[in-house]
Amino acid sequence: MSLDEGTQKPHERLAALLAGDLDLVNALIRQRMASEHAPRIPEVTAHLVEAGGKRLRPLLTLATARMCGYEGPYHIHLAATVEFIHTATLLHDDVVDESKKRRGRPTANLLWDNKSSVLVGDYLFARSFQLMTETGNLRVLGILSDAAATIAEGEVLQLTAAQDLTTTEAIYLQVVRGKTAALFSAATEVGGVIAGQPEEEVQALFDYGDALGIAFQIVDDLLDYWGSDATGKNVGDDFRERKLTLPLIKAFAAASDDEERAFWKRVIEKGDQREGDLEHAIALLNQHGALEATRQEALAWAGKAKAAMESLPQSELRDLLIDLNDYVVSRVS
Amino acid sequence: MSLDEGTQKPHERLAALLAGDLDLVNALIRQRMASEHAPRIPEVTAHLVEAGGKRLRPLLTLATARMCGYEGPYHIHLAATVEFIHTATLLHDDVVDESKKRRGRPTANLLWDNKSSVLVGDYLFARSFQLMTETGNLRVLGILSDAAATIAEGEVLQLTAAQDLTTTEAIYLQVVRGKTAALFSAATEVGGVIAGQPEEEVQALFDYGDALGIAFQIVDDLLDYWGSDATGKNVGDDFRERKLTLPLIKAFAAASDDEERAFWKRVIEKGDQREGDLEHAIALLNQHGALEATRQEALAWAGKAKAAMESLPQSELRDLLIDLNDYVVSRVS
Repeated sequence: MSLDEGTQKPHERLAALLAGDLDLVNALIRQRMASEHAPRIPEVTAHLVEAGGKRLRPLLTLATARMCGYEGPYHIHLAATVEFIHTATLLHDDVVDESKKRRGRPTANLLWDNKSSVLVGDYLFARSFQLMTETGNLRVLGILSDAAATIAEGEVLQLTAAQDLTTTEAIYLQVVRGKTAALFSAATEVGGVIAGQPEEEVQALFDYGDALGIAFQIVDDLLDYWGSDATGKNVGDDFRERKLTLPLIKAFAAASDDEERAFWKRVIEKGDQREGDLEHAIALLNQHGALEATRQEALAWAGKAKAAMESLPQSELRDLLIDLNDYVVSRVS
Repeated sequence: MSLDEGTQKPHERLAALLAGDLDLVNALIRQRMASEHAPRIPEVTAHLVEAGGKRLRPLLTLATARMCGYEGPYHIHLAATVEFIHTATLLHDDVVDESKKRRGRPTANLLWDNKSSVLVGDYLFARSFQLMTETGNLRVLGILSDAAATIAEGEVLQLTAAQDLTTTEAIYLQVVRGKTAALFSAATEVGGVIAGQPEEEVQALFDYGDALGIAFQIVDDLLDYWGSDATGKNVGDDFRERKLTLPLIKAFAAASDDEERAFWKRVIEKGDQREGDLEHAIALLNQHGALEATRQEALAWAGKAKAAMESLPQSELRDLLIDLNDYVVSRVS
């Protein structure tokens, strides 16, 4: 047991416990992001991959494979696969969102250009499919290519739902599954599949990743109004970008009169935002209990994730994955 | 034998001979470009897929699988896979090149926006990997994911080589393999692999697709200076976009004095192009025999494609694929 257990966060403890595997994943990532012919590719990729991301998704694959007793080599390939898919989507997201900062550094689209971000993202997608093909496991290929389609579909849905006040909670959930939960659940499911676990346990691993991912994203969207030192996001980013996240969907549905509805139409649909509007929006969110209701949904999804993981045999890794889930919602507890 | 043989082009005769298969491919494409949740996806895809492309790449897969005696269902999946990869790269290319027209119609990035083109392209990539995974054939998965990586690498290389007069013929060939030949050779190779052909025949099919793709692209780059009614391209597009294609690389290498080199530096490196520059460039290309040398290279690659295909057993489809190759270079013969 590490001396740091009291101060280390669960993902840091996972990284410490799986340090050997994680080193292999990082070496494989560095090897596969190389390009004999186009040096621009490793430049752009390294800028993002080495910017100090938490490697949360590869850790989920390593942890689930290991807790299922996997002893082969392919959890390393699969962990690198999910990190490549994640990195490719970040590169494309920053083009789509016209972002200027990511992980505290200027984005690749700003440092190089949109073209490089699009094409290097494509390269990493292709590399991820090469990596997963090397496992020779058709079932994990199906899971990961389904996840890639769900991710892209969720991103398109988010694009078309932006600024649209008729967006429902069901559409929001679909977007969240696409942008976050699909890769979390694929990461945990393939850990069990590669280890050859029985169907019931694979399902529990999928359920854990799905619910963890949804809780993670709802917390993120809640903190955008609630605020937190930890996220590094400014309060109100989603409001300024007119994104239909759960707090806003709930507040608009609960709007008590035409004046409130007119306010939301002006700031979200028309994008006419003035001094004091964010504060007024937050006041409305509180008045209708939208923040508290959103928080309760995050806690409910975290409860599902915990129950799924608790259905599996006890182990140090299982308990760390439960701690990780608790930690995700602790930011709003 | 069709009454139209005298007037139909080889790819039209292939499409007629493989009409039943091609209908199945088109039906599968329509089915898989659907999205339950995001209607933007089929809108964007249909705009491009139904704009009357020649379906050249899927025809290569159908023809090679059939000429190898394949009787199973998966050549349809593979043909749809290569068309999806092709469509995805077109969507992303148009973003990268800031194109306004494709197949005589406004591009998707113009009709919708860059965001939709990037994300729908990603969706089609993911769909293509789902389709190929369904074949259950790990070798075709390796071939097609390698091709996807080579395509993206070639596109990045083209991006970084643009406006760079030090670009060599070796780099040009690498770009051409990426942007065109990699998908041609993957399309023909998987036709043989899915049919379970011996290694030697699979290699011949790969060689045919590779050389056909390179000849195809060299002809395209040549016609950009030479002109043709058939391409629908304006003479000088590549010159105006300052692309380092084979005619220009050869002419710059052959430049006889500092004045000529200064001309190329001004118009290509600096992009300072004036009235009469294109005409002067074409005069230099002719003076140094760069167009004729380029034409000879196209013919040499077409010769390699023909030899590879002639090494395979005679059949109607084989002969049509030879005719197709002859047709590609007939535009500059």
